[in-house]
Amino acid sequence: MQEILRRHIEKIVPLSDEEFAFVWAHFTAKKYKKHQFLIQEGEAVKYHYFVLSGLLKLVYTDEAGKEHIVSFAMEDWWESDFYAFYTQTKATMSLECLEDTKVLCLSLDDYKKLCDGLQKMVRFFLEKANFGFIGSQRRIISWLTLSSKERYEQLLKQYPSLIQRVPKSLLAAYLGVSRETLSRLSS
Amino acid sequence: MQEILRRHIEKIVPLSDEEFAFVWAHFTAKKYKKHQFLIQEGEAVKYHYFVLSGLLKLVYTDEAGKEHIVSFAMEDWWESDFYAFYTQTKATMSLECLEDTKVLCLSLDDYKKLCDGLQKMVRFFLEKANFGFIGSQRRIISWLTLSSKERYEQLLKQYPSLIQRVPKSLLAAYLGVSRETLSRLSS
Repeated sequence: MQEILRRHIEKIVPLSDEEFAFVWAHFTAKKYKKHQFLIQEGEAVKYHYFVLSGLLKLVYTDEAGKEHIVSFAMEDWWESDFYAFYTQTKATMSLECLEDTKVLCLSLDDYKKLCDGLQKMVRFFLEKANFGFIGSQRRIISWLTLSSKERYEQLLKQYPSLIQRVPKSLLAAYLGVSRETLSRLSS
Repeated sequence: MQEILRRHIEKIVPLSDEEFAFVWAHFTAKKYKKHQFLIQEGEAVKYHYFVLSGLLKLVYTDEAGKEHIVSFAMEDWWESDFYAFYTQTKATMSLECLEDTKVLCLSLDDYKKLCDGLQKMVRFFLEKANFGFIGSQRRIISWLTLSSKERYEQLLKQYPSLIQRVPKSLLAAYLGVSRETLSRLSS
């Protein structure tokens, strides 16, 4: 568990044993079962999560009660309702397990202590945030330039394992197409 | 000019005069005329830009040669083809002035020196990146949940000044609708 986090961080910043011990002390490990919620819309967002194993969906529910998938999160991904987390406001999204899931939890208080105590971690989070931004900009470009079919094919190519693990109805809710359209695209 | 940048940074991290002098030494001021390009698709991306005045469009051109607007940038915004900038690869987007524009330019080398020399600036860029990510996630949610009409109304509400300054054809290229659809929505 410690090794997973350490390898993940060291892809960006090298850490001494002492530094990693300091980092590790700020995280709490938790296990969730399939269908359990880590974040519930309308409630406080306590943690920024690092996924050790399993799969989650970050969901925005519209006024008509329809679910839209903002993102999936699996091994090595960081996930939260970030706006609610950083501003300590109520969640506008929910985060739910699609599989049994193990995560490391980082509270806002511990996030601040970690950044104050070890500048390398600010750099680590900066690089993660920059590439998170670039990733979502690319998703916007896909929306602007590609057909539903092309977006489906791009998803297949980018995350082949995701397609195996996620029911078609959820892929449709991620791509913003109907379940019927997706069946046609993937047949 | 210095004051604009200083006020902007100090919204997030306070700086002493000495620290700001250090920050300022890493930027170069440039002026561009309407229609000039700061970034050209296929070329190197030298700078991360801070907009002092004016207005720009970040454009992705698809294979059919159609322009899609990834974002607009105006006063107090940071803009670049960030993937190309950070990875030092060729630009996949272009950045063009829609008005005469003044910017401050930060090269990757100076960005690194600035972050190495003043940890506060890593924090500043982290906060900018986090909220940039949140902003683009919200745009994705708009795509998933809103109609073209609702997205147009949201844009009007969020950036009333943008609507005054940008031709309808460009708003359409930002919203991903045809010029005709936008005319119908905005009439």
